[in-house]
Amino acid sequence: MKLAVIQTKYSENVNINIAEKVKEASKNADLIILQELHQSPYFCVTEDVKNFKYAQNFENDLVFWSSVARENKIVLVTSLFEKRAEGLYHNTAYVFERDGSIAGKYRKMHIPDDPAYYEKFYFTEGDLGFNPIDTSVGRLGVLICWDQWYPEASRLMAMAGAEILIYPTAIGWLEEEGESETASQLMRWITIQKSHAIANGIPVATANRIGFEIDPSKTYKGITFWGNSFILNAKGEEIARASANNEEILYAEVKREETREMRDIWPFFRDRRIEDYKDLTKRWRD
Amino acid sequence: MKLAVIQTKYSENVNINIAEKVKEASKNADLIILQELHQSPYFCVTEDVKNFKYAQNFENDLVFWSSVARENKIVLVTSLFEKRAEGLYHNTAYVFERDGSIAGKYRKMHIPDDPAYYEKFYFTEGDLGFNPIDTSVGRLGVLICWDQWYPEASRLMAMAGAEILIYPTAIGWLEEEGESETASQLMRWITIQKSHAIANGIPVATANRIGFEIDPSKTYKGITFWGNSFILNAKGEEIARASANNEEILYAEVKREETREMRDIWPFFRDRRIEDYKDLTKRWRD
Repeated sequence: MKLAVIQTKYSENVNINIAEKVKEASKNADLIILQELHQSPYFCVTEDVKNFKYAQNFENDLVFWSSVARENKIVLVTSLFEKRAEGLYHNTAYVFERDGSIAGKYRKMHIPDDPAYYEKFYFTEGDLGFNPIDTSVGRLGVLICWDQWYPEASRLMAMAGAEILIYPTAIGWLEEEGESETASQLMRWITIQKSHAIANGIPVATANRIGFEIDPSKTYKGITFWGNSFILNAKGEEIARASANNEEILYAEVKREETREMRDIWPFFRDRRIEDYKDLTKRWRD
Repeated sequence: MKLAVIQTKYSENVNINIAEKVKEASKNADLIILQELHQSPYFCVTEDVKNFKYAQNFENDLVFWSSVARENKIVLVTSLFEKRAEGLYHNTAYVFERDGSIAGKYRKMHIPDDPAYYEKFYFTEGDLGFNPIDTSVGRLGVLICWDQWYPEASRLMAMAGAEILIYPTAIGWLEEEGESETASQLMRWITIQKSHAIANGIPVATANRIGFEIDPSKTYKGITFWGNSFILNAKGEEIARASANNEEILYAEVKREETREMRDIWPFFRDRRIEDYKDLTKRWRD
């Protein structure tokens, strides 16, 4: 599976910019992964009904990204602001086949709501569960950003046969946070995703955005998205990693036999104590 | 919570050696953690009924470690070869209170069985579930070695109110494995445990053994236990780490308010999609 992860910053011509990068990446990759909500600024930095405008052309968005996949003959993982009905929106990854057809979609299941990441205002939580998407390049375990922090999500994808975990992401720093805290946050973000590769013996590809985006409400100065998009092999080893500041295309080839090798050597799935896992479906064990 | 992790190698006088180290550590710690099966060599390197001899004095072992806890007025996490009945054995962590009483026990739930780690021959899998142990220093989420690889185990302990995860461990390298593979294994081992701290916002303390122990069956040369015992804070940051080769006592103070701070800032427990986690109790989603 030859894949590419595209890391970009928001600009007025973002769709043209990304489409050009997809064209370039398609020379060396069959699967191309874009970052979370790549068509727009990360509008969730503040709560404002005006921002639902970013979902108003959703059907045209599908047509556009379908054409990008078809013209470049690649499988394309996009991240869109899905308008499902008036007043009902999702944060949804649409996956397009090489012929432009829709291979499947994943609606973000875990929705954050933290200062400057007010996603619960914009997005209804996903109702499609944790199900990978079959494509011509393999079975893709597409999850989105906040899902990164949940070992339950990655496990369920792996158990449904996902051959790779894919995380379109928009995460960064507030200027108000100190330097040591920001370094620690980046470490935690990479570490938790490495753990998904390790626990499940599958590769991981994560696309994050870069660039500083202001908070129009002026509550905060804004968010500096920290880039550092990466690709891990089935051992959790970094095989590609982007910078914090530059637009980049990461390339890697991940091999199915690495998953078998990892799981045969360290057979974690053999020994899960499923009869004692029932309480995982509780909110808390009190 | 002031704690110490003791990393030792096996020797003929191992119990005296460890008791002396506990005495030293007790000057600066209220909670002391020993490595997996610290009384014996790691006999699981081969399958031999003769090795059940290491469990034959189990009741005396309890008396001995009780006295070590009582004399030093510390909470002591031990790791014993428990003889429960003739032909029924467990790999069990007994936790002793400052007065020498038994605070509780945890029977290893996930039992490995890999070349040179033939634990399924020796140990019946635990039947006490994933339940933390209440002590005068706090609620301890004691797990053992192979449990390290299971995010389900750490999650269940955290959800039951564990204030710290504790992993007595015996893990190392076979000489037959190459250098890059051994470095990768160490990375995976530390990373997966950091992920438990990060996902759950609680500290982690892991005691591993050091030293080369031969394989008496001569199937392998033997295992070089890789040490590197460590303590993580609730952010998953390393606050203490031992060498690969030396006997050491690691000290750290972990603070309850760090758990609250971590969970308030990144409230992963708030957003778990428990209604969609049911399949975690399946063997595979096919």
